[in-house]
Amino acid sequence: MRLSRFFLPVLKETPSDAQIVSHQLMLRAGMIRQEAAGIYAWLPLGLRVLRKIETIVREEQNRAGAIELLMPTLQPADLWRESGRYDDYGKEMLRIVDRHERDLLYGPTNEEMITEIFRGYCRSYKDLPKILYHIQWKFRDEIRPRFGVMRGREFLMKDAYSFDLDLESATKAYNKMFVAYLNTFARMGLKSVPMRADTGPIGGKLSHEFIILAETGESEVFCDARLVDMPAPGEVDFDGDLQPLVDQRTALYAATEEMHDAARFEADVPEERRVSARGIEVGHIFNFGTKYSDPMKALVTGPDGKDTAVHMGSYGVGVSRLLGAIIEASHDENGVIWPEAVAPFGAGVINMRAGDEACDAASTDVYAKLDAAGLEPLLDDTNERAGAKFATMDLIGVPYQVVIGPRGLKEGKVEVKIRASGERHELSLEDAVNRLVEGAFK
Amino acid sequence: MRLSRFFLPVLKETPSDAQIVSHQLMLRAGMIRQEAAGIYAWLPLGLRVLRKIETIVREEQNRAGAIELLMPTLQPADLWRESGRYDDYGKEMLRIVDRHERDLLYGPTNEEMITEIFRGYCRSYKDLPKILYHIQWKFRDEIRPRFGVMRGREFLMKDAYSFDLDLESATKAYNKMFVAYLNTFARMGLKSVPMRADTGPIGGKLSHEFIILAETGESEVFCDARLVDMPAPGEVDFDGDLQPLVDQRTALYAATEEMHDAARFEADVPEERRVSARGIEVGHIFNFGTKYSDPMKALVTGPDGKDTAVHMGSYGVGVSRLLGAIIEASHDENGVIWPEAVAPFGAGVINMRAGDEACDAASTDVYAKLDAAGLEPLLDDTNERAGAKFATMDLIGVPYQVVIGPRGLKEGKVEVKIRASGERHELSLEDAVNRLVEGAFK
Repeated sequence: MRLSRFFLPVLKETPSDAQIVSHQLMLRAGMIRQEAAGIYAWLPLGLRVLRKIETIVREEQNRAGAIELLMPTLQPADLWRESGRYDDYGKEMLRIVDRHERDLLYGPTNEEMITEIFRGYCRSYKDLPKILYHIQWKFRDEIRPRFGVMRGREFLMKDAYSFDLDLESATKAYNKMFVAYLNTFARMGLKSVPMRADTGPIGGKLSHEFIILAETGESEVFCDARLVDMPAPGEVDFDGDLQPLVDQRTALYAATEEMHDAARFEADVPEERRVSARGIEVGHIFNFGTKYSDPMKALVTGPDGKDTAVHMGSYGVGVSRLLGAIIEASHDENGVIWPEAVAPFGAGVINMRAGDEACDAASTDVYAKLDAAGLEPLLDDTNERAGAKFATMDLIGVPYQVVIGPRGLKEGKVEVKIRASGERHELSLEDAVNRLVEGAFK
Repeated sequence: MRLSRFFLPVLKETPSDAQIVSHQLMLRAGMIRQEAAGIYAWLPLGLRVLRKIETIVREEQNRAGAIELLMPTLQPADLWRESGRYDDYGKEMLRIVDRHERDLLYGPTNEEMITEIFRGYCRSYKDLPKILYHIQWKFRDEIRPRFGVMRGREFLMKDAYSFDLDLESATKAYNKMFVAYLNTFARMGLKSVPMRADTGPIGGKLSHEFIILAETGESEVFCDARLVDMPAPGEVDFDGDLQPLVDQRTALYAATEEMHDAARFEADVPEERRVSARGIEVGHIFNFGTKYSDPMKALVTGPDGKDTAVHMGSYGVGVSRLLGAIIEASHDENGVIWPEAVAPFGAGVINMRAGDEACDAASTDVYAKLDAAGLEPLLDDTNERAGAKFATMDLIGVPYQVVIGPRGLKEGKVEVKIRASGERHELSLEDAVNRLVEGAFK
């Protein structure tokens, strides 16, 4: 992408209404624009990152055997009357009446609708097990939306739902999502820690939150350092036994503020391994059995010919929230430092003197080569002064920057700057391109 | 994808409430499920096609230089009060009140919001020209939603908006979208005809509808046969002069029922080239000048230092509607016949006797090879009887089917069936795979 053709409205001032760094940086870097309280437009830069996060979430869901569908944003109220949640849900549910006076709502979550879909088609144990998911916009009418996309009202969520004949099989589905989540967040460059959670209004017994550690996180968390250092499982056989991978983690102490037990923490974790940090919830998984299938009569016939309510679980990832969470975990005073896997552009090319024949030619050449190699480069071909160009490239967090100026070019040199470390390398044009394409600076 | 793991709830009976063939087939093939009047869940098969269509639309928008962003589904009513459309829009607009008694609405289109975004950042002719687009769910509270996704209430639309200093430049943007649309629909295997259109409530002078021809189309259209036969422009320089490409088409007679002038049709088009057919609207482009920028004060400073309201246009494609339209244009009595570019699976592998060692091995082998070659195959590894497997594969419209049975295998043979023509080829396993990978049956 050439910056002169892109739409990147960066702001010079930090907006005064943004309290946390991710919100400030997303506004300054021209990633989002508020359209109403807690409702944002995703500007081109923000959308590019959102799509990368969404793709990682999708790929890891697919790898775990989950099947994607897409439920609508609006739902009929009657579905929620069946489960009993229509009256319980309170003012966070955005209730809507259509022109025929029928009650609709903007889905805050989809347990009811997926149960309705399941019961419409599946009636036998032979249809099981099944994990269905979608990535769709949700709405929760938060009383005080704040912190940008971290606590917005219209937000993008991945929610998966599992269907099994019994608790044993449902636990396998739970474990698949548990492992998929570890891999998902690791691919985004995040350290995520699963913590036993309160099941809240969704109900059920088995539940974990996935918390990523960030100095500016929203809440305090406590855990064993071994959990933080443990690498994600990576490639595993999702049809195999995942219980050991799960047990290995759940055996170690980890708790959010609400679930924290200081005495147990001290008893179970030696002092040198006690991590007390700040965290951000980015995923939440539940096994809630027949909480919805019972009232909604989602029954399956077992091998014994008897009908039983299907065992279910639900598994959420805050896709739009992850943008904020990643920035909270990875930034400095100059801007965002994107982990490569979610960076909006893989490399930046700064033409220090647009209009200068040699600079233009070299910049276009480097840009074309990085583009052909699939690095999705951004070429700053504008007439801004050099300082502004550097500042913008740092602000938007492009991982590698190739700086092309008339002085260096005379000696056939360009500068490669690594955003995360600030390191600079003076290289020939050819070396710069080759090393970037090889991933030599990773 | 293995069918035993997929979620493909095909129906044996044609649902009685579906009046048109695309609606019937989408329900029967397990592509959609109605959740409320005009509100559908996209089941996995339908979603796969929807995503392919979306991707083609996106690629052609990008190629034309349009920049993607994403506006939220909900909008503040105040924006529409600025343009004056809040009261005008009538009951098709779904109006919502949030917990703080603020008026919101589910966006039926985005002229107001994109104008608000533009004016928030762009104030100079140097920021122009710009084409911004998004692909987002919209809602129109149709009084009688019908025909499945062809006239639903919650629907996916691509809408682009152009910003220019004057009409001359705005016409260039218009021409870019005109050409991009021809290419977009052609890539989906559709014959699209641009027809001069009434501008309706969006306003403006220059407007075309893009109509695809389908025997079961919703309305009657009239045009010169040369328009139908004219190939799409294909690769063009979008920075170059596109006017000749546009003129070449707009010079020929083409009109929908409402705009039809029988006398002119007969005068302008020789009898043998007079096409009178049925069509479906899948795109609509408008140049409406300063209709929104005037009341909303989206001003830009020109090179002369004077402020003028920015010239705008809007350009819509009915992404979810296209699924229905493609099916209307391409089906037979056995089901859908997907054009390859949008087919949910590139090839089907039918294991005629799941459980038979030789059949299982050969099927898995063919499946793995087609998968590795990027054909996105679907392997029917279920225990259904052969007739049901054939019927399902035809119903869901997979372009090529590899039928693997015990009898053929004894002679090392499998059968390849071409869905569109019904042709069958008896081939060795190796030949079948190689020819499919080469695209030899196209």
